[in-house]
Amino acid sequence: MTIPSTCAPDFAVQTWFNTDRPLSLPALRGRVVVLVAFQALCPNSVAVGVPQARRIHETFEPKDVAVIGLHSTFEHHEAYSPAVVKAFIQEHRLKFPIALDLPNASGPIPQTMERYKMRGTPSLVLIDRLGSVRKHAFGAAEDLRIGAEIGALTQESAGAALARSSAA
Amino acid sequence: MTIPSTCAPDFAVQTWFNTDRPLSLPALRGRVVVLVAFQALCPNSVAVGVPQARRIHETFEPKDVAVIGLHSTFEHHEAYSPAVVKAFIQEHRLKFPIALDLPNASGPIPQTMERYKMRGTPSLVLIDRLGSVRKHAFGAAEDLRIGAEIGALTQESAGAALARSSAA
Amino acid sequence: MTIPSTCAPDFAVQTWFNTDRPLSLPALRGRVVVLVAFQALCPNSVAVGVPQARRIHETFEPKDVAVIGLHSTFEHHEAYSPAVVKAFIQEHRLKFPIALDLPNASGPIPQTMERYKMRGTPSLVLIDRLGSVRKHAFGAAEDLRIGAEIGALTQESAGAALARSSAA
Amino acid sequence: MTIPSTCAPDFAVQTWFNTDRPLSLPALRGRVVVLVAFQALCPNSVAVGVPQARRIHETFEPKDVAVIGLHSTFEHHEAYSPAVVKAFIQEHRLKFPIALDLPNASGPIPQTMERYKMRGTPSLVLIDRLGSVRKHAFGAAEDLRIGAEIGALTQESAGAALARSSAA
Repeated sequence: MTIPSTCAPDFAVQTWFNTDRPLSLPALRGRVVVLVAFQALCPNSVAVGVPQARRIHETFEPKDVAVIGLHSTFEHHEAYSPAVVKAFIQEHRLKFPIALDLPNASGPIPQTMERYKMRGTPSLVLIDRLGSVRKHAFGAAEDLRIGAEIGALTQESAGAALARSSAA
Repeated sequence: MTIPSTCAPDFAVQTWFNTDRPLSLPALRGRVVVLVAFQALCPNSVAVGVPQARRIHETFEPKDVAVIGLHSTFEHHEAYSPAVVKAFIQEHRLKFPIALDLPNASGPIPQTMERYKMRGTPSLVLIDRLGSVRKHAFGAAEDLRIGAEIGALTQESAGAALARSSAA
Repeated sequence: MTIPSTCAPDFAVQTWFNTDRPLSLPALRGRVVVLVAFQALCPNSVAVGVPQARRIHETFEPKDVAVIGLHSTFEHHEAYSPAVVKAFIQEHRLKFPIALDLPNASGPIPQTMERYKMRGTPSLVLIDRLGSVRKHAFGAAEDLRIGAEIGALTQESAGAALARSSAA
Repeated sequence: MTIPSTCAPDFAVQTWFNTDRPLSLPALRGRVVVLVAFQALCPNSVAVGVPQARRIHETFEPKDVAVIGLHSTFEHHEAYSPAVVKAFIQEHRLKFPIALDLPNASGPIPQTMERYKMRGTPSLVLIDRLGSVRKHAFGAAEDLRIGAEIGALTQESAGAALARSSAA
């Protein structure tokens, strides 16, 4: 794992897609959460980040791993709207829950992106069963390594994660 | 070549990008024109059509071959705007001229797409030096074959193309 | 995991490469072993199996995971020799230990391939820290899934693996 | 085209595969010849050169374009034999004629490789309908560009090529 664990901040969301009710980190406690930030017009998001999120969603059991997409951008605000994100999701036939990040009155960086200190898109964040951030990658991340890290996190029981968390 | 030659209809355009004045087929006469229709949120357009257009633009001499992008869609009209196309062009760093197809008051299919009877995106149309359509492909088209066809068309002199056209 | 655990048979080897002494499963006990069978002239071995073996070797710590290549074939015996395998290793700049499977006096299937009941190349076998086979894949195997499975196996302590083994 | 035209030297061949009689450049006169040099254990030959040769063979009409494979190497002589090349051709299901380059008593570079001054494998040589070398590429060559060059060469009549040749 690449960074010390820290408590993952919750999502600030303008609109949710592919879920009939808003999601929150406390409600996902007990599962490994894979948060994939992307934007619909960013080449690397489309070529790398989104397909990887889809593969993760198809590979792991939902009871163990929750994949959450986050549409987030600090530029092109005049171009993006919920309709763009909705059309993107339809065109790519994405099935996992996707949040449209909440705009920020005080600047161009939306609120979830700011809370996670993301450097851009695509970004991938791994959150363990107890809600701690265990990895934060910007740009392409190799499937083999990401698979290994998610695989290892799923092996941690909530109890073990709790013990680890208390000791830290 | 896959279809009999027919006179290529001119473009109907809402907005041009990457050119300081509107382009028209008569003004491109004498060059081979490669028209690539795409939409910014369509996975195959982004993975296949747009990168191929970029490679064609980088491979052939501008005096011989003009690459024209056409943003065109019969759906998701609520999502698309000139700002979306502009952001897409910036993100992908596209340098060739790109036209935003002109909406159609009488239906969802924009006017250039309708004139060319395109079935969707990506589509690729090859137009010879005299303005006749010589190929119309929907979906992925192999680089080797497209290269061969453009290479053959560039070998036709305007005179030879004229003779061919008169005989047809 | 796709198959019940069984005790992994040891290797029968004609020639070792990239190691100064012969390797055996008992000597690798305590580490997860990834055994990748390939043949030098098989397209899928070269395009899929060998590059994946290299990525696994580069991704995991040697103290946790041992990657072993196995050159094994039930055909083209007239073509293969230790010199072919040696040249292949040089050309591909492979750094992990590679065994040339031991021919079988009684038939075309070499001895390690026969012991593992491999169906051809490429094949990938995951062996846990205690020497039990935990996965056996023939053909392409996705990086994400293989990564997850290796990642999970590395989380098993030798003690846990032993407990699991005793209970089975 | 990247080099001035020169008369292509004929092949010096130890063994032919996929043809019931030896081929020679004079007998191929009138067709564009695509000569692809490769070696069976060279990663770039297998990943790039051989698949491109196959695509060229599948894309162009045999009456216009003849694809010839040339197995040629200046190293690993102890590994290579006609049986290795035969197994490689079977494994990759190659259908076009392939020549095994003729060893050279005076050094490690086989005779056809030497005549063409090839720098290694993969190499691709384009020969026009009259037998002149029109392109010589070492390493990866883009499909689009190669397609364009073959497409242009096929447009040259034997007569035009002759006129060009006389003028040069």
